[in-house]
Amino acid sequence: MTRVAIIGGAGYTAVELIRILLRHPGAEIVAISDIQENRPHVASIHPSLTGRLDLCLEKLTPAEVAARAECAFCCLPHGVSASLAPQLLDAGVRVVDFSADYRLDSSEGFAAWYNQKHPDPGRLGKVPYGLPELFREQIRPVPLVANPGCYPTSAILPLAPLLKAGLIEPVDIIVDSKSGVTGAGRTPTLLSHYPECNESLCAYNLGRHRHTPEIAQYLGWAAGAKAEVLFTPHLVPMDRGILTTAYSRPRGSVTEQQVLETLGDFYANEPFVRVVERLPATKDSATTNFCDITARMVGGKVITISCIDNLIKGASGAAVQNFNLMFGHPETTALG
Amino acid sequence: MTRVAIIGGAGYTAVELIRILLRHPGAEIVAISDIQENRPHVASIHPSLTGRLDLCLEKLTPAEVAARAECAFCCLPHGVSASLAPQLLDAGVRVVDFSADYRLDSSEGFAAWYNQKHPDPGRLGKVPYGLPELFREQIRPVPLVANPGCYPTSAILPLAPLLKAGLIEPVDIIVDSKSGVTGAGRTPTLLSHYPECNESLCAYNLGRHRHTPEIAQYLGWAAGAKAEVLFTPHLVPMDRGILTTAYSRPRGSVTEQQVLETLGDFYANEPFVRVVERLPATKDSATTNFCDITARMVGGKVITISCIDNLIKGASGAAVQNFNLMFGHPETTALG
Amino acid sequence: MTRVAIIGGAGYTAVELIRILLRHPGAEIVAISDIQENRPHVASIHPSLTGRLDLCLEKLTPAEVAARAECAFCCLPHGVSASLAPQLLDAGVRVVDFSADYRLDSSEGFAAWYNQKHPDPGRLGKVPYGLPELFREQIRPVPLVANPGCYPTSAILPLAPLLKAGLIEPVDIIVDSKSGVTGAGRTPTLLSHYPECNESLCAYNLGRHRHTPEIAQYLGWAAGAKAEVLFTPHLVPMDRGILTTAYSRPRGSVTEQQVLETLGDFYANEPFVRVVERLPATKDSATTNFCDITARMVGGKVITISCIDNLIKGASGAAVQNFNLMFGHPETTALG
Amino acid sequence: MTRVAIIGGAGYTAVELIRILLRHPGAEIVAISDIQENRPHVASIHPSLTGRLDLCLEKLTPAEVAARAECAFCCLPHGVSASLAPQLLDAGVRVVDFSADYRLDSSEGFAAWYNQKHPDPGRLGKVPYGLPELFREQIRPVPLVANPGCYPTSAILPLAPLLKAGLIEPVDIIVDSKSGVTGAGRTPTLLSHYPECNESLCAYNLGRHRHTPEIAQYLGWAAGAKAEVLFTPHLVPMDRGILTTAYSRPRGSVTEQQVLETLGDFYANEPFVRVVERLPATKDSATTNFCDITARMVGGKVITISCIDNLIKGASGAAVQNFNLMFGHPETTALG
Repeated sequence: MTRVAIIGGAGYTAVELIRILLRHPGAEIVAISDIQENRPHVASIHPSLTGRLDLCLEKLTPAEVAARAECAFCCLPHGVSASLAPQLLDAGVRVVDFSADYRLDSSEGFAAWYNQKHPDPGRLGKVPYGLPELFREQIRPVPLVANPGCYPTSAILPLAPLLKAGLIEPVDIIVDSKSGVTGAGRTPTLLSHYPECNESLCAYNLGRHRHTPEIAQYLGWAAGAKAEVLFTPHLVPMDRGILTTAYSRPRGSVTEQQVLETLGDFYANEPFVRVVERLPATKDSATTNFCDITARMVGGKVITISCIDNLIKGASGAAVQNFNLMFGHPETTALG
Repeated sequence: MTRVAIIGGAGYTAVELIRILLRHPGAEIVAISDIQENRPHVASIHPSLTGRLDLCLEKLTPAEVAARAECAFCCLPHGVSASLAPQLLDAGVRVVDFSADYRLDSSEGFAAWYNQKHPDPGRLGKVPYGLPELFREQIRPVPLVANPGCYPTSAILPLAPLLKAGLIEPVDIIVDSKSGVTGAGRTPTLLSHYPECNESLCAYNLGRHRHTPEIAQYLGWAAGAKAEVLFTPHLVPMDRGILTTAYSRPRGSVTEQQVLETLGDFYANEPFVRVVERLPATKDSATTNFCDITARMVGGKVITISCIDNLIKGASGAAVQNFNLMFGHPETTALG
Repeated sequence: MTRVAIIGGAGYTAVELIRILLRHPGAEIVAISDIQENRPHVASIHPSLTGRLDLCLEKLTPAEVAARAECAFCCLPHGVSASLAPQLLDAGVRVVDFSADYRLDSSEGFAAWYNQKHPDPGRLGKVPYGLPELFREQIRPVPLVANPGCYPTSAILPLAPLLKAGLIEPVDIIVDSKSGVTGAGRTPTLLSHYPECNESLCAYNLGRHRHTPEIAQYLGWAAGAKAEVLFTPHLVPMDRGILTTAYSRPRGSVTEQQVLETLGDFYANEPFVRVVERLPATKDSATTNFCDITARMVGGKVITISCIDNLIKGASGAAVQNFNLMFGHPETTALG
Repeated sequence: MTRVAIIGGAGYTAVELIRILLRHPGAEIVAISDIQENRPHVASIHPSLTGRLDLCLEKLTPAEVAARAECAFCCLPHGVSASLAPQLLDAGVRVVDFSADYRLDSSEGFAAWYNQKHPDPGRLGKVPYGLPELFREQIRPVPLVANPGCYPTSAILPLAPLLKAGLIEPVDIIVDSKSGVTGAGRTPTLLSHYPECNESLCAYNLGRHRHTPEIAQYLGWAAGAKAEVLFTPHLVPMDRGILTTAYSRPRGSVTEQQVLETLGDFYANEPFVRVVERLPATKDSATTNFCDITARMVGGKVITISCIDNLIKGASGAAVQNFNLMFGHPETTALG
């Protein structure tokens, strides 16, 4: 039984994580840390957990976390996470970090996109990116894993195998993504106010969404070359799900069949990637840890369509998948 | 051409009102007052108005409003409205008040339900309630009209004719209402945060919603006796629309046919009440000033079902209907 | 390992049932029967099951089902189920029946509400009603269980304990229920066509919904007297969830505290009923087997509010709970 | 007063058209033709029209239509329209055709994309395309106008001015469009069944949507050269609205400012195109005849974002705009 703590327990990724861990026969939630002063019961913040988990949200020091838990899931804002994680690691706690803090290789890149100095630059470039489909063996032994962003997961999984196989060019890649509103978090804002975003669709953060460098970095890794990616996120009136339509240029005379087979072969043994012939809908993978992928060749472009649940494969499900790898549990535990 | 000002221009009732008035051949919007310091353009607050209305939201004194406008629509919170309206009235501006401030007859009732002393108690009981279907002639000549609440409109229109005709008892009335989320206003809160209220349904303010005394007062007026009403509001994942299912006890041997005929006769000449045989859906009256009503006799109870658009017949459409009466425009102008 | 078959595999309750059973360590799905001729793969009907269950929908005789399975979940229309179930039972298969066929005690009641002669009248009144909270011990040993309707579950769970305790009268009960659209099934109709029911709310089947006699029968059972129930279903623009607001008359001087305590005591040891102080939202119990209940005393009435996921506690989750009882699995297996 | 008939009155474009025409002081709806045998009242098909229009849906011959109306709006499926329109024209009725029948220049193109022989090939290439922003003067005098498709309107309006100005290349254009579900029509299908498409997002008809050649033809017209367009439609869980994100390659050293100014200048005097700086949401133009457009230069691509209401500017509003031009009514009548 692995004892786990959740650091930052008030958000949507935290409650989703708790729901998954409650089904996990090898994990026990022993603490939920949060900045709230009044020690609210977890069920008063997340009513769906009533009667399922009897813990309060506490302000805990890293030492207090370490006294109880072997693993900490850090559901914290960027910047905050990299200030805390080193202390947890020093105290012997292994960490799955939901923030973007350890995803980029360089502190310059981080500073440029996040407008702040990185609190822990020495670790950058050494923390495995928590996509087991690409970095499974690197994830198993380490004390710290950088859990991927939701959009990047939806973009990297379809494109990386094609770049690795040399079927598409690493430049001129357009990633047109559409996400449900839980991706915007649990803090009420006008953008996510029901009468504003219901029955409406918009693009946002055009050309400056912070998932852009993360996508580019790992597509570049797959290509073995610098990747150029144009990323356009859209907000869709639904709770969960990301659908990513990616357009790329085939290298030479590539067929649709080749693209589908390359994807199918690459993920043949993966438990959570389904390469399908039909055009997937986000609902097919909603509330699951699956990523559904298909591809078409149209008008001289390779189009990939990929769907995930942004809170599960895009966040908390991936985190548990990483946790399973790190602590020797069967990889699919609690994710079926 | 009647010159009108909108006092409190940042909310949903204001933008809906503006959209209606832009279609009104006899009204000109000359000012929009608001507490915002920076004089934002109305289109920066309400993007749908881009290119349609070239005004800024200004902080205006009652005298400044009076210098420009003959009529003010006050879209203000309760308490605030009754502090400002007297000054507007003194300055010669006629007022359609969206707040609850002048709807109740007694300052004791107001204090009990709104937890504050009424700022203008002398007018209470003398301001006509802006339901033209019941108080048309009283509305025409006055300087100040109390525009009804959205839930009360949906409850009073089906029940008042039955009480007037003595077909139902004024006690033991259950008003089970279901409203879209625009009814909660434009200020972001957790209750109206998209991922909280989307795909969810809840009751709220059970036994203490402030529309309760307003419903009771006008049902009592219709019955000529004290009315006892149990009011249960629910929040429904949709933008607009209220459906009210009301249960009442028939007085003696009343038939469904009688109930439907009484309603049909009462509203035979009303431009905005449609007594229908089918069970109406809120979508039938969405974006219109109609109230759709039907009735059934089931299990010894009279059930009425009524639907309105909460922002139109429940607020801004009713306000323009009252404005039309007050200023001698054809009653249906801009509301067709 | 219990071998189970699903009879009628194309609908929403079937796919929900399959998802639950795939997490069940003691159940193996060995067959899915359906009337489709072309033996479609289950994933071609239910894309969410891609890669999770490798079975085709087959036309199977009762004998063929019996050759493979110990238990059959019958997800069939009323009338059809009671024609097939006897053959399955004769062949030694135990049956959880999702239809209404075995829920009513009398063939006259069935004929009156379902407009057809009951195919298997001899069993009526002898089949336990699959609400473990009320009939746990009766369910364990039997070959056939009548899985409850979704609305009845949401109405009976809050009201039965109050009737049993004599806190409310069995007459004059109003059950105002609001359901998500999955309750209407998977066959496209205008009522469930997205542009018709999205952003809309309506009542339907007023006074003639077939769940009415089922609610009345079990409330009568709880009261030890004939119960009179007025049932009003509404269709809400969301996928899942039922919220039932029930109004009843207290017997004597009952307090809100008494009502809440009676409910709390009755369900103190139940794994899937949560008596809460807050007003529950359907989202709190969505995708779970929980029923959330609260109560208020307002205007001389007892109001209970109860929420379930119509596809889980209202159908497939309850079915697995019954299956667990019948086959000796821990009652909460696969339902956590 | 222009007497108008609606041919094909049961769909969503028809009811939207009727709502608009009811506000039109210069148009009178004199007939609604449909294939239904039983002459249903229009309000029995479209409940929102109760009390607003007292007509039945009749089976009418072209001669019967001509005896009553000067103008016919044909809301018919492709193929059917081009069989009927010639007879209406011969009988002296001017026609606004909602179908795709007269949009393409060549019968070969029509046959290739619509899998049928064109019924009236002689007119192809001579019927003006009903985008007043591009073809206003051609539309005024003619007896027949081809009302544009919804997706094409959303794609052509932002791109045509840039192609005309030579700011972007006519090749390598990607049009990634997202539409609400009313675009799928009023006939219930599994794709538009509420529980299937609610809370879900999917791409459909990849590479084979019939609006592709229409977009290409008019972008080619604007460019004065063959245009190559990749068109990807997506279905979004909302009633109305299309957001089109188009990616194109700048020709030479073009700046974002230049692109925005070119669009702004081109549409400076257009009543229904708003070039905005903010990223528009579909809700800004919902229920209006506006098209909102903005542009960004990101990663070496010109990105245009454009929003329309698919039923209004994408269908019935555009039709009335064309009607206004054809019959000499002020162009914005009933569309404000």
